[in-house]
Amino acid sequence: MTKEYEVIIIGGGPAGLSAGIYTARARLSCLLIEKVMIGGLIANAEMVDNYPGFPDGISGMEIGTLMQRQATRFGLETMITEVTGLKLKGTQKIVKTTDGDFTADAVIVASGSEHLKLGIPGEDEYTGKGVSFCATCDGYFFQEQTVAVVGGGNAALSEALHLTHYAAKVIVIHRRDELRATRIVQEKALAEPKIEFRLSSIVESIEGENTVNKLKLRDTANGETSTLAVNGVFVAIGFKPNTEYLRGVLPLDKIGYITTDDKMETEVPGIFAAGDIRSNSIRQVVSAAGDGSTAAVYAERFVRELK
Amino acid sequence: MTKEYEVIIIGGGPAGLSAGIYTARARLSCLLIEKVMIGGLIANAEMVDNYPGFPDGISGMEIGTLMQRQATRFGLETMITEVTGLKLKGTQKIVKTTDGDFTADAVIVASGSEHLKLGIPGEDEYTGKGVSFCATCDGYFFQEQTVAVVGGGNAALSEALHLTHYAAKVIVIHRRDELRATRIVQEKALAEPKIEFRLSSIVESIEGENTVNKLKLRDTANGETSTLAVNGVFVAIGFKPNTEYLRGVLPLDKIGYITTDDKMETEVPGIFAAGDIRSNSIRQVVSAAGDGSTAAVYAERFVRELK
Repeated sequence: MTKEYEVIIIGGGPAGLSAGIYTARARLSCLLIEKVMIGGLIANAEMVDNYPGFPDGISGMEIGTLMQRQATRFGLETMITEVTGLKLKGTQKIVKTTDGDFTADAVIVASGSEHLKLGIPGEDEYTGKGVSFCATCDGYFFQEQTVAVVGGGNAALSEALHLTHYAAKVIVIHRRDELRATRIVQEKALAEPKIEFRLSSIVESIEGENTVNKLKLRDTANGETSTLAVNGVFVAIGFKPNTEYLRGVLPLDKIGYITTDDKMETEVPGIFAAGDIRSNSIRQVVSAAGDGSTAAVYAERFVRELK
Repeated sequence: MTKEYEVIIIGGGPAGLSAGIYTARARLSCLLIEKVMIGGLIANAEMVDNYPGFPDGISGMEIGTLMQRQATRFGLETMITEVTGLKLKGTQKIVKTTDGDFTADAVIVASGSEHLKLGIPGEDEYTGKGVSFCATCDGYFFQEQTVAVVGGGNAALSEALHLTHYAAKVIVIHRRDELRATRIVQEKALAEPKIEFRLSSIVESIEGENTVNKLKLRDTANGETSTLAVNGVFVAIGFKPNTEYLRGVLPLDKIGYITTDDKMETEVPGIFAAGDIRSNSIRQVVSAAGDGSTAAVYAERFVRELK
């Protein structure tokens, strides 16, 4: 016997919790499933400075906890388990997990995405202490400082260009001898006096004292190592949406993101998507939360119309 | 001489303030123009229970003030004046106001919408004290109570159906002798045991003691008056998006809402829209704030690419 819900939410970050606040408050029977820890990726953020309503900023852990308390107050049921698949059976959705199957009339997919890491010494240690994966989030903390951006694609150069609003100098480090970004983005970056380039270079380690103060680089052409003094480093080598379990069920774009309309509807009736897992998401707490609430309102209407 | 900005935001509600937090923090030169009062429509809400991050709820006035403080901290310039028109001149946008013209590379339209009112005694007096314009926002406060919904269209019946999750009884009052809602929505509502109908009836006044306790009705067929005991009344007779000044500049839908893509882009390059002014908006603080942040991030990219 599988347990049945009106709505199942996959993912316990800001998008999923916001959806949960709305579905639970609307007194739908709903279950939120999270793999690791309620709060999601944002729980790692030392300081969220731009979630509207917290003028002095708030830690990612705190904002996650507040949203969870709010959802719990409205009676949201949550479960820590891993979703391994999603199947359709008529209008019913079967969510397969390592703890068994659950069925729902509507599913809100909010399992987020992961930023790819360099996998080098110092990266985890200094995350939030000079290592960042988001210029929109953290660039503001590096006013008049020197920062590096690791990566050579459009996203990396876009991060670098955004960082010129704050930093005195932005050094783009890319392992190949040419950038991958499109010509127009490259031209912008090359024309920007604050941006310098270190091509054919690999970051071997991130070092510091309490916060980042230097990078160890290796030249891929001649193997020589060098040290680069920086106050921060933005890793911009890509993202991996957590959508593996959706292959064959939902259409995904080239990278694996989900496309929705403005009601957060996917191409499958009754499956909604919210947050960083959507294509063109700006990967911010507030946009994820907005998506989640929208998905919840339209999921409620979908469930009502089924009956 | 008109003053020039990179971004002008029209509207000082959650969508505009959220956009302002993002554009100001990104150190763009930007101006937020609000007609009446920073905070927007939400400032009238006694209690916002579902803005994620405030588990015990917060007043609309407070959430507006917090967002304004945050935007001010990042240096957002604001101005109270009325926007009377928007003109395009090449890639430049000219925002016409009663205090002169301002130009910008990008404009974020976040001037919201107004709910239509009945215009009867007691309506303003008891707003937030039993009179509501949003079941998703306030339905939760009427658990096991008797509420009325005024209106006969899809929106009104949708509000009524949503309210059945909370209320013991929902009475739909409509001035005509038949509903305007589509057949399928009517059938759902007619089949719902908690919903009753009072057709051919006009609400003449809303009365109470501290909070609403009754409605004065008049039968449009025979002119007879009666009293209906209720704990609350939801006015659902429609909305009017504040887009008059955009006619001829931006394509608007039948009602006057703006359609955007998932980057909040309108059909005119460099003009973005956010919040309740968008078609399919769920009219919630969090979705408006999410829209605003998304519009700001893509407006920044637009401005950068212009240069």
